[in-house]
Amino acid sequence: MAVTLKDVATLAGVSVKTVSNVVNGYAFVKPENRRRVEEALAATGYRPNVGARNLRRGRTGFLALMVPELSIPYFGELAGLVITAAQRRGWSVLIEQTQGTRTRERATVDSLGPHLVDGALVHPEALEAGDFPDPGTGIPMVLLGEHAVDVALDRVAIDNVRAAHVAVSHLVSLGRRRIAAIGVNPRRGTASLRVAGYTAALTDAGLSVVDSLLEPADKYHRANGAAAMNRLLDLPEPPDAVFCFNDLLAVGALRSVAEHGLRVPEDIAIVGFDNTEESAFSLPSITTISPDKAAIADAAVDLVHARITGAERTPPHEVQPPFSLEIRESTAGTAVPGGL
Amino acid sequence: MAVTLKDVATLAGVSVKTVSNVVNGYAFVKPENRRRVEEALAATGYRPNVGARNLRRGRTGFLALMVPELSIPYFGELAGLVITAAQRRGWSVLIEQTQGTRTRERATVDSLGPHLVDGALVHPEALEAGDFPDPGTGIPMVLLGEHAVDVALDRVAIDNVRAAHVAVSHLVSLGRRRIAAIGVNPRRGTASLRVAGYTAALTDAGLSVVDSLLEPADKYHRANGAAAMNRLLDLPEPPDAVFCFNDLLAVGALRSVAEHGLRVPEDIAIVGFDNTEESAFSLPSITTISPDKAAIADAAVDLVHARITGAERTPPHEVQPPFSLEIRESTAGTAVPGGL
Repeated sequence: MAVTLKDVATLAGVSVKTVSNVVNGYAFVKPENRRRVEEALAATGYRPNVGARNLRRGRTGFLALMVPELSIPYFGELAGLVITAAQRRGWSVLIEQTQGTRTRERATVDSLGPHLVDGALVHPEALEAGDFPDPGTGIPMVLLGEHAVDVALDRVAIDNVRAAHVAVSHLVSLGRRRIAAIGVNPRRGTASLRVAGYTAALTDAGLSVVDSLLEPADKYHRANGAAAMNRLLDLPEPPDAVFCFNDLLAVGALRSVAEHGLRVPEDIAIVGFDNTEESAFSLPSITTISPDKAAIADAAVDLVHARITGAERTPPHEVQPPFSLEIRESTAGTAVPGGL
Repeated sequence: MAVTLKDVATLAGVSVKTVSNVVNGYAFVKPENRRRVEEALAATGYRPNVGARNLRRGRTGFLALMVPELSIPYFGELAGLVITAAQRRGWSVLIEQTQGTRTRERATVDSLGPHLVDGALVHPEALEAGDFPDPGTGIPMVLLGEHAVDVALDRVAIDNVRAAHVAVSHLVSLGRRRIAAIGVNPRRGTASLRVAGYTAALTDAGLSVVDSLLEPADKYHRANGAAAMNRLLDLPEPPDAVFCFNDLLAVGALRSVAEHGLRVPEDIAIVGFDNTEESAFSLPSITTISPDKAAIADAAVDLVHARITGAERTPPHEVQPPFSLEIRESTAGTAVPGGL
């Protein structure tokens, strides 16, 4: 039996009107009531009678989310949070995968018309500014991730330059002096920003940037991290620390270091990026930049909702959710005993 | 610019008619041509003019996929493969998350009508037989995973009893005699099947089933695996091996063993389930049951396609994709040097 507004109201201990206000995204709901309603919505899996409501409003009831690959944990986690955030607004989420290639990203962005979805959250890796449909002619679109294209769309991304600076400064503060970077890739907007933060942190510490310590990565998979670390360990002067541009690269680097009979963090300290759950459980656990993924998902859904409902006609917004540095065993020097 | 059938045909080096035959799922296409077209479809991200075609056929162009949580790597990987398989049939995929609770699963199944999607692939964890809409009245639905409910729907699942038997027999063959299981959960259909395979393998080896070695897990997250392993290591006689019902539980168990100063596999051998990429890179890497996930996704999409196009009116099918045992460091005793 379908869950009704009344079921949600009973569970939350509020009126049906309050539930309706939350579901429809009205602003004037007491925070405490909003929290109780949102919990009850999540617990019951309530969804508005989409068919009727959308017909009335001329909407499809669908939101598209474009990501490179769901099998990359960051995108799996983010997609889960987007689905949850969208459900609170009565949207079902359609997921499109592009493998991060410009051809696929362009084909996806082209296919997302108002016949299909009410709006889209897109996480491009290779799109160029001219590839986007003219804003205003298509559906509302929000950019996820700091992809460096100049296009007049709302965006949600943490400050990647500052985050990279924090990560590298942490390694500097531990006394590391030959700090490598894994994940350099001129085609990826975020990679360039992270290189900028890495370079600035080294410069601020009076260290020079050594070209041979800048390791490229085509994909950001575990195998790419291992291959890059293998190359770094073959250098005449290997690094004493490495900043990886995502956690998967860090997991691969960790394996490479272990296979060389070296220790993390004693011989080589490692910092990752994304704070995927895997990084908290790996042996050793991985210090990582932790973007507030729930805040990213919520902000993106709120922005596209505001555009769709027409409440928002101002120039594009840029929202920067917070991030933090999670210090773990891969830099803290307090690795658990035993293991291999 | 949208990709056309002609672009795909040019890239594949076949006629437009051949591409059209593949896209529309007709049977009589030479395997070599089918392969070339499928590669070209993937490379270009071609999608049929969904709007026009669906209007003509009275379809929505959407397929729903219901999973517990996308942040669980197995479901992230599987969802990615389902999206790829569905795209070849011209479908976009809508993803619904249930957290594996019966309330949410029921609400989702109820909401999936023909106004929303053409068909659904559902991976339930708690649904009971009476919770499903009467087949024939709703949209075609295919069950994923061996959830033990008696309902007349097509299903796709590996043979979980046999897979668990293979995993435990591998531990027996290494001389292990106190083999624990982590993941017992009477509410999960697959858990009961894996317990059955575990029990049968022990019995076949002349070993008795020890109740204290059967560890429950509510969720199948890394933290649950660590908590269960902590309890097992507190036993007067701890196990010398453990079969975990998924890779995340195994990753948690691995951490617990390391934190106790014990070694894997010397002191405790570990086998997981799912062959997520994480298990291939963890330190040590984890021996695991590897279901053919691409075959699961393809079979499920093919089954729902056959029901939707009406080509298939026979009684429900049960498809059992193959699986294998990936033997890695957590049982092979050839762990990499170094590490922690």
